[in-house]
Amino acid sequence: MSARIRLDIAYDGTSFSGWSRQPGLRTVQGEIEAALGLVFRRSGGAPGLVVAGRTDAGVHATGQVAHLDLSAEQLQRLEWHRGEADGGVPALARRINGILGADSDIGISGSSIAPDGFDARFSAVWRRYEYRIADGAVPWNPLERHRTLRHPGTLDPARMNEAARGLLGLHDWAAYCKQREGATTIRTLQEFHWERGADGILVARVRADAFCHSMVRSLVGACIAVGEGRLEPGELAGIRDAMERTAAFAVAAAKGLTLTEVGYPPDAELRARAERTRARREPGESLTAEPRIG
Amino acid sequence: MSARIRLDIAYDGTSFSGWSRQPGLRTVQGEIEAALGLVFRRSGGAPGLVVAGRTDAGVHATGQVAHLDLSAEQLQRLEWHRGEADGGVPALARRINGILGADSDIGISGSSIAPDGFDARFSAVWRRYEYRIADGAVPWNPLERHRTLRHPGTLDPARMNEAARGLLGLHDWAAYCKQREGATTIRTLQEFHWERGADGILVARVRADAFCHSMVRSLVGACIAVGEGRLEPGELAGIRDAMERTAAFAVAAAKGLTLTEVGYPPDAELRARAERTRARREPGESLTAEPRIG
Repeated sequence: MSARIRLDIAYDGTSFSGWSRQPGLRTVQGEIEAALGLVFRRSGGAPGLVVAGRTDAGVHATGQVAHLDLSAEQLQRLEWHRGEADGGVPALARRINGILGADSDIGISGSSIAPDGFDARFSAVWRRYEYRIADGAVPWNPLERHRTLRHPGTLDPARMNEAARGLLGLHDWAAYCKQREGATTIRTLQEFHWERGADGILVARVRADAFCHSMVRSLVGACIAVGEGRLEPGELAGIRDAMERTAAFAVAAAKGLTLTEVGYPPDAELRARAERTRARREPGESLTAEPRIG
Repeated sequence: MSARIRLDIAYDGTSFSGWSRQPGLRTVQGEIEAALGLVFRRSGGAPGLVVAGRTDAGVHATGQVAHLDLSAEQLQRLEWHRGEADGGVPALARRINGILGADSDIGISGSSIAPDGFDARFSAVWRRYEYRIADGAVPWNPLERHRTLRHPGTLDPARMNEAARGLLGLHDWAAYCKQREGATTIRTLQEFHWERGADGILVARVRADAFCHSMVRSLVGACIAVGEGRLEPGELAGIRDAMERTAAFAVAAAKGLTLTEVGYPPDAELRARAERTRARREPGESLTAEPRIG
């Protein structure tokens, strides 16, 4: 019997050309599939990964989710490790981590048999990101620099929150997205707020059903302009509704962005959700490309 | 009028051959003194730094403290910036940070006129370190890998805390130190405990009046052996009192160690404390070397 496996994945995006496999470039998908190729080198080779969020170059993840399909023979290969504390499918995470090495910038947090109807991409109901900014109000901690944008001026989180609140809901986000031909830019922004952590770092938490390309970084860039006083909080919704890209703000750097969580419905609804998402796709969209999000 | 300046400093130690200036090597002191040399290039050149804790290669800091002495002419050079929001001495931190660059692995958190009698090294009454371990009980987060030791097995913090408690107090730590000729290994271990953070990472907090060379990393290595079950909690004090280096545990890697805080007495006691510390030093110890701690 074959089976679909769910992988939970974390990575430091600094040294990757993004998630998606690309010839000659170091990518997260490329590294994990190469490790899978070693695990299954005598049982059919590397299964391909389908991912919840194709992150861009430099974007990190602590809660990325992907799936892969294993043949009966491949499953049996994992069962050989049944005797170990975490034998069988759960051992796959440890085996990939072992191949990646102790200092790897990728960590597989878990591997499990996926529930019936699960599709890492199409079953997902929302994605959540964090964006971290160390502004002039806090001393610079170089230990945070891999995942935190350093902003020289002092930002006003109250203004940024007012702007963020005004953006929530179902809208066309064309003004905040890099256009891809045939892809929809209509999304529901479910959550967007800013908060200073105990260490003073400003953290945005953003959630939507899905994000179009560079959407989170555009939203963050617009909020930075508001936090600096260059834009008024109310202007961001106006920019969105004008439906055109603007030079009023810059897309924020990838290094501050981390995919933290992907939401799925209860197991009984996984298949229906996946079918609905597939059916809703625009005609022009490629059948194999995952949504590029973030 | 001349003045003594206190600098508060953070750094990611990964790419440094430690704190202390060394010809041909990239060191934290070397980088900061080079930046100071640019700031004061027309007023006498770089003042030298005296530091609270000379950290080893790969060790980080969020709360390092150093001092430097500025001549009247150098002070005046800083006063030229008085018109700015943080003119005068407080602007020195910003000027050094500007020279180091936005992505620097060093951050100057603050610069201030030091109180009378202040000596970054000799006035200090204690140093506090953190050591971070991601053991097998938590998923590996690659974003933490620069400052966190990855340990494949699962450690028992209750045993480690029992061992740590048993070590507190004034003792000779020769068994836990790399010997330096003529330097004392008698120190007071004031605080040593382990705790799992919200993210599951095991964090040790360790405080002593001062640490001899590699002492924190030896204490941590011994606790790892206890956490694994290779040593009993009560054995660590016995090893200490045998006064000889042992092969029963390994010195833990530098990457997990961060100097987080240096304690000073009330201003009125700074000078007396510095004089007492100087007087207590062993005859063989060099008069210019700062204590190598960590």
